[in-house]
Amino acid sequence: MDKPAALDELIQALRCLPGVGPKSAQRMAYHLLQRDTAGAGRLSQALSDALGRIRHCGRCNTFTESEVCSLCASQRRDASLLCVVESPGDLLMMEQSQSYAGLYFVLMGRLSPLDGIGPREIHLDRLVKRATDGAVREVILATNFTVEGEATAHYIGELLTGKGLAVSRIARGLPVGGELEHVDSGTLAQAVLERRPA
Amino acid sequence: MDKPAALDELIQALRCLPGVGPKSAQRMAYHLLQRDTAGAGRLSQALSDALGRIRHCGRCNTFTESEVCSLCASQRRDASLLCVVESPGDLLMMEQSQSYAGLYFVLMGRLSPLDGIGPREIHLDRLVKRATDGAVREVILATNFTVEGEATAHYIGELLTGKGLAVSRIARGLPVGGELEHVDSGTLAQAVLERRPA
Repeated sequence: MDKPAALDELIQALRCLPGVGPKSAQRMAYHLLQRDTAGAGRLSQALSDALGRIRHCGRCNTFTESEVCSLCASQRRDASLLCVVESPGDLLMMEQSQSYAGLYFVLMGRLSPLDGIGPREIHLDRLVKRATDGAVREVILATNFTVEGEATAHYIGELLTGKGLAVSRIARGLPVGGELEHVDSGTLAQAVLERRPA
Repeated sequence: MDKPAALDELIQALRCLPGVGPKSAQRMAYHLLQRDTAGAGRLSQALSDALGRIRHCGRCNTFTESEVCSLCASQRRDASLLCVVESPGDLLMMEQSQSYAGLYFVLMGRLSPLDGIGPREIHLDRLVKRATDGAVREVILATNFTVEGEATAHYIGELLTGKGLAVSRIARGLPVGGELEHVDSGTLAQAVLERRPA
């Protein structure tokens, strides 16, 4: 039984999606063709629109359709604060937390020498230029608390401290509502180590 | 923070994929734009190609790019056997099992009155016409062993037996290599009920 070539190609193409293996790609392709050709058409169009229209903000490097994103263009943000995140998704999480009113710089990655991702790939030259423009007083490092995210924060911290900037790192500890019984011991150990006056 | 409209539209469009909620859609969109624009372009093209080129086989109703699919056109299949499956994916599984050399009819669904899927939606008029063309001696029902798949098999069984056709149902039981300890009790009960002479 030969599958039609166009179907085979669609199944292959779906595998570029993260977390989608051969089985799910096949299920997705059949679902689209059997039950949601309208959705498939819309997805095809949305992909091609996004590829054509989305680029990187000239200031913070996040995704935007303009020269400068709406956040960097806003007058209501505190220009003395610059928060460094790994991805536009992380920027969104920061915004959703409503805990931060400054500006951002999006690395679009993290240092990962084994994958060939060095300082140039995460745009550290642009970050240094952005952070030393005179307006920024404090740089807040909000990369992930993974091995690579930590290494990236450490590297950027050294780099910007050397330029005379105040650099901070977001806190580690128990989640809000977290119970000691259910938290992993590494997190608990850090929470003890980084305890603060009550 | 407003996301670019094209990004928002892409995230919405990705949700037409089965099992993809808002969070994964966002992750997929960022992944494509950050790390795999080539894959995204290929996916867009593959979707539009598939929509344009794939249609249903005039004989068995599966996906094909021709009038009649390669399987129905083959001279090497046993035209006296007709296997009824719910979807092209199921047809593929049957083929991969290498246990069947006859032809197929693909329902493209299952009876599900609550979802408005009746005999017409699963093309039962075409199935009857196909099964009574004179060449078919036995119809093998290979719909799923779900409530809806069973109901569909039962309905088709009655329908075709009424036309004087021999109708069979694929067997239920323990999987090959299956251990009694690890199988669900419903399956085990059926396996006992449908035991065969050793």
